[in-house]
Amino acid sequence: MAEIVELLAEVVGAGNVLAGDDVSPDYAHDEALTATPSVPLAVVRPGCTAEVSAVLKIADELHVPVTARGSGTGLSGAAISPEDGILVSFERMNAIIEIDLDNHVAVVQPGVTLEELNVAAADHGLVYPVFPGEVTASLGGNVATNAGGMRAIKYGVTRHHVLGLEAVLASGEVIRTGGKFVKTSTGYDLTQLIVGSEGTLALVTEATLKLQPRLAHASTVLAPFTTLEEVTAAVPRIVAQGIGPLILEYVDMISMAAITANVGLDLGIPESVREAALAYLVIVLENSHEDRLDEDVASLGELLVELGAMEVYVLPAHAATQLISAREKAFFVAKAAGADDIVDLVVPRAAIPSYMAAVAEVAERHGALITGCGHVGDGNVHLSVFQPDPERRTEVLRAVFRAGMDLGGAISGEHGIGTEKKKYFLELEDPVKVELMRAVKRAFDPHGILGPGNLLD
Amino acid sequence: MAEIVELLAEVVGAGNVLAGDDVSPDYAHDEALTATPSVPLAVVRPGCTAEVSAVLKIADELHVPVTARGSGTGLSGAAISPEDGILVSFERMNAIIEIDLDNHVAVVQPGVTLEELNVAAADHGLVYPVFPGEVTASLGGNVATNAGGMRAIKYGVTRHHVLGLEAVLASGEVIRTGGKFVKTSTGYDLTQLIVGSEGTLALVTEATLKLQPRLAHASTVLAPFTTLEEVTAAVPRIVAQGIGPLILEYVDMISMAAITANVGLDLGIPESVREAALAYLVIVLENSHEDRLDEDVASLGELLVELGAMEVYVLPAHAATQLISAREKAFFVAKAAGADDIVDLVVPRAAIPSYMAAVAEVAERHGALITGCGHVGDGNVHLSVFQPDPERRTEVLRAVFRAGMDLGGAISGEHGIGTEKKKYFLELEDPVKVELMRAVKRAFDPHGILGPGNLLD
Repeated sequence: MAEIVELLAEVVGAGNVLAGDDVSPDYAHDEALTATPSVPLAVVRPGCTAEVSAVLKIADELHVPVTARGSGTGLSGAAISPEDGILVSFERMNAIIEIDLDNHVAVVQPGVTLEELNVAAADHGLVYPVFPGEVTASLGGNVATNAGGMRAIKYGVTRHHVLGLEAVLASGEVIRTGGKFVKTSTGYDLTQLIVGSEGTLALVTEATLKLQPRLAHASTVLAPFTTLEEVTAAVPRIVAQGIGPLILEYVDMISMAAITANVGLDLGIPESVREAALAYLVIVLENSHEDRLDEDVASLGELLVELGAMEVYVLPAHAATQLISAREKAFFVAKAAGADDIVDLVVPRAAIPSYMAAVAEVAERHGALITGCGHVGDGNVHLSVFQPDPERRTEVLRAVFRAGMDLGGAISGEHGIGTEKKKYFLELEDPVKVELMRAVKRAFDPHGILGPGNLLD
Repeated sequence: MAEIVELLAEVVGAGNVLAGDDVSPDYAHDEALTATPSVPLAVVRPGCTAEVSAVLKIADELHVPVTARGSGTGLSGAAISPEDGILVSFERMNAIIEIDLDNHVAVVQPGVTLEELNVAAADHGLVYPVFPGEVTASLGGNVATNAGGMRAIKYGVTRHHVLGLEAVLASGEVIRTGGKFVKTSTGYDLTQLIVGSEGTLALVTEATLKLQPRLAHASTVLAPFTTLEEVTAAVPRIVAQGIGPLILEYVDMISMAAITANVGLDLGIPESVREAALAYLVIVLENSHEDRLDEDVASLGELLVELGAMEVYVLPAHAATQLISAREKAFFVAKAAGADDIVDLVVPRAAIPSYMAAVAEVAERHGALITGCGHVGDGNVHLSVFQPDPERRTEVLRAVFRAGMDLGGAISGEHGIGTEKKKYFLELEDPVKVELMRAVKRAFDPHGILGPGNLLD
């Protein structure tokens, strides 16, 4: 161990290698509810790509596991290093290298947070439109998990905005993929292969991200419905209207009560409505023209009534901001309420009612409480699972995942598999695909040092 | 050979295996200008996925090369089988399996053409928005090359619309990837890896494609400029306006004269303007509201004048359709004019003027004529190269590609590498990336039977 620490210190300087008692407990965990904290053999804080490369050369030669860490806000355990591994923390590689106004792209180092990029882009009337809800998350982490969030219905997810990468392979070799362009048909798309690979194929040291014009005006509409079926049936009708909703969320009765209570938010909804509403649809529209926005909100309101909404509320700006921000904090509400695990399965959006019925059946059968809200526009269902017994919880989760996959879904929409959902992934996924992924992993990382224990064994 | 034909006939029926003189010359080529026609050992026309699987099992066991073919409209030679290979033609697998109105997706077999899908989606007020220009192209071919086209500035390319695939591996094993959802973070994205792999990793037997609302109104604006620099400088300003252009093309003076003459199109542009215009910007806007479209066209016109346009023409619908369709046929105009090769390199869009200057220098140095038009919104430059001597042409192309790569570009934006650009790709691309791609290829296709000679050796 002393030898490794010394070798690493030669690369990044002694002040940027932490070992033993110098390792803060912060480095031992991410936000996954179920993961066991683990203190790595060493924490390394490289300052540039050449240092990352040199670190990986050492690790690859000595076959030491390497785990990448951004802000540590992940929900799958993927940023936790095993005790015999090196944790590469990207906190010092946090520069916005460029906001390129001619090509409308940002070039960032992995340690840049969503909030930092948001502020920098806003200065130029632009936006990086992926909002997974946790603004302290790093872009390196976003790339690793293919982060999604509420705005995917309009803008897609991280994958759709990553145009190019600089990445360091396990061998220490540095590659550049893609570039400042949307189109390319020049060999296998290594950019897209690395996005979402949870630190198991390469360490990303720079990302080229597509920016969009920042539209000046937004409006939030809240519509309570008496059934979830009506909510999901409303979605394609709203999308087909061509108004391009920025956000299309559903929040179930329990979650709405919890997230509004959490921030002391009174939406002014009469008790009679609150009592009868089983699910809420939250719709945000945006536009560069205020008059067009108002017109769209009015026609959306008419459509919602036609589709069975009990009422249609256009929220005041302040309440809208609070509700969206409270919704983004749903995870922390669930955590505070004592949820034992959270799930972010994805199904075809029209399958949400069937899926929630299956979930209710699972909950009843296994004696668990499961509450939910989700991105109804894209079928990404967030569930909080209350079942303290680990073995029974495993049964619940397996049943919940299987039900989603039976409906054509996948285990994770945006949190990733990491260490915490791996057993379900390996058990439920087609073994032919798992074997293909293992072979791809070997192609990138023959000694298996990157992201040990994440996704695959 | 007789043995293979017999084995294949057992799978697909004797009527669906062609060999020897029964193979029509149509199967021996695609639209690549430089590729040598080649008659395969056998043409197989499977009718379903199980038959594709059985064909691949035979080929893998006997180590016989397999080439996939859709409509044969590709421009890189990737659909041409070697003489000792099996050509799998997807002409019989041409069903639109489903237009799913709740999830806004289409599920298609690979032999469906863009035109067929366009008609089917239009019936429901939806559109598959990728328009590479050749409507007889098959969706299987589009997936294989990651086809792009003029609308990429608004909607992205094929990759951004393929949500899931059914694909047959070289072993004959059938996998399903992705699904009817935009978000997923559940292992490596095999969908995105197969898209653009030019038939070298798997044969696609079904694709799940995202559909968009079809907007009712469109308007085409034509603006001549005296310099290319002004055209490219206008692009970020137009995009930043938030009007979301559907098409942003530039057409150089020579190409404009050629493509309008080809269809006998008179755009009503006075000779004085035509003589001074060095490049034209063609902008198409679309909207669900006619009044908003008119308003956007008016403000776009003002902006264009501010940005130095000599004039701004709003084309009558008929002329607009003709111009766009003529532009889509630019390839055939180049072909008819005797172009010896075509190039579809991509560079950062702001680098187009530097790139065209470099191209002019290359043309002069090598005594070649090179004309161009392109997707200025996304940096995809289409060049027609006139240089009949193959050796000198190779020099020209190498220099043209190197100049683009030096500016941060890539060899092909949408046509693919295939057999015809492979030597440049292998010579100019980072060998570390090429080796990674080879390793990925081996992971999918250990015996190297798929897409022989395409992309990699």
